[in-house]
Amino acid sequence: MENRGFDLSNYNFSFSLRNKIGRVIWSFCYFLLFRPFNLETFKGWRSFILKSFGAKIGHNTSIQASVRIWAPWNLEVGSFSSIGPKVDCYNQGKIKIGDHTVISQKTYLCASSHDYTLPDFPLICQYITIGNKVWVAADAFIGPTVNIGEGAVVGARSAVFKDVAPWTVVGGNPAKIIKNRGTF
Amino acid sequence: MENRGFDLSNYNFSFSLRNKIGRVIWSFCYFLLFRPFNLETFKGWRSFILKSFGAKIGHNTSIQASVRIWAPWNLEVGSFSSIGPKVDCYNQGKIKIGDHTVISQKTYLCASSHDYTLPDFPLICQYITIGNKVWVAADAFIGPTVNIGEGAVVGARSAVFKDVAPWTVVGGNPAKIIKNRGTF
Amino acid sequence: MENRGFDLSNYNFSFSLRNKIGRVIWSFCYFLLFRPFNLETFKGWRSFILKSFGAKIGHNTSIQASVRIWAPWNLEVGSFSSIGPKVDCYNQGKIKIGDHTVISQKTYLCASSHDYTLPDFPLICQYITIGNKVWVAADAFIGPTVNIGEGAVVGARSAVFKDVAPWTVVGGNPAKIIKNRGTF
Repeated sequence: MENRGFDLSNYNFSFSLRNKIGRVIWSFCYFLLFRPFNLETFKGWRSFILKSFGAKIGHNTSIQASVRIWAPWNLEVGSFSSIGPKVDCYNQGKIKIGDHTVISQKTYLCASSHDYTLPDFPLICQYITIGNKVWVAADAFIGPTVNIGEGAVVGARSAVFKDVAPWTVVGGNPAKIIKNRGTF
Repeated sequence: MENRGFDLSNYNFSFSLRNKIGRVIWSFCYFLLFRPFNLETFKGWRSFILKSFGAKIGHNTSIQASVRIWAPWNLEVGSFSSIGPKVDCYNQGKIKIGDHTVISQKTYLCASSHDYTLPDFPLICQYITIGNKVWVAADAFIGPTVNIGEGAVVGARSAVFKDVAPWTVVGGNPAKIIKNRGTF
Repeated sequence: MENRGFDLSNYNFSFSLRNKIGRVIWSFCYFLLFRPFNLETFKGWRSFILKSFGAKIGHNTSIQASVRIWAPWNLEVGSFSSIGPKVDCYNQGKIKIGDHTVISQKTYLCASSHDYTLPDFPLICQYITIGNKVWVAADAFIGPTVNIGEGAVVGARSAVFKDVAPWTVVGGNPAKIIKNRGTF
């Protein structure tokens, strides 16, 4: 069969009306009730707003006011965790983050993709799972279907497309194992 | 000859007055007439605005309202294509994009460079050419003088500095061939 | 000893009150007196504002209005240098930049880290040193404790975690030597 690739002339992918309405309401609440409350003292308030939109968030977790969240109802974060400034949580699919885990500033969690083997290029909503006691350092990229094991460290600016084994340190683009985190 | 490197004490590179005036007018129109119209229903309007500033844009193409465009008159996009949210189209040189091509969110198309072998470090306005039926995935970087062949796929967060052969899949920084896209 | 990793249940890292007050005042001045003055003609004014907050800046240096600076008092830039649009100067530790050096747009200078070998994950304020006649190209990432030698060129989108030797050209993530810059 010959190479034909995309034919996007009938591309009309669309989320459900329910999803669209949910996101419009979330956008308004984000700008009015979440984004302006950027002091540390409001971290409980910000979690409360997210939980009102279906997020599951543990206690003592801090999600910065500048974090972008596509769909709070697809977000689950444990306790004592931290999501830093300007993290982009692009959770068209589910994103689950454990306890005592730190996601540093500007990291991009991208939980969806497209199937480029099909001419109509369908969106695929997938997932990202990040375990307990993980550190994802600044400006990293975590792609869809990635599982990051407990205690792993993902280096700054690295781009992760495959699962990361527990208690390993990875870095680079594409990310590779640099060393074991060791025990302490 | 000894290493002397840059001497920027007389650096006064500047675009032409005509270019500067054009960009000032474009900036105003961008903020008033382009950026606020971010619903899908306004995609034709956004293309119309860009075409008024000299862009060549085919039919049924969607350029998101949050796309940054340095100079619309250096932009050419085919039909049935899509340029996603927050793409940065830094087209001091020409950027040409084909039909049925998708440029995903946050991608940075950087069509110019500097000649670092000269002490006065001159700006070089070059080009980027992206073929038909290409997918450039999220947050990629495409450098100056790059040609991306028909049907190629550029992985998320990858950084492309060399030409990409048609119907190949590339990824990483620097981007390398991962596999052939195959036929379907 | 078993793997226990982070225990962030008592995490309460905080900068000194003096630092916090300084940054609040700087934030106000940034938005009122620095960020709006984005014409080239105001480059001296912008340097003056930064110097008022303790920065050391030489003459004929241009720091774009869209540059983000965490703490001006931790910034030192020489003469005839340029820091481009949207550079993020995350200088919780000191960042020092030489003469005739160009830092291109969107580059992220990240001078601090965390010690992930300790359960309480302490912040470590480190430094970045960039020599004379260096070019850091667009959207690069420079990590903590990095020294970039005189005359080096750091490629676009590259991520630098180790020292860069003088008069070399590096690129990629992680950045590696591509070639010598040579003499001219």
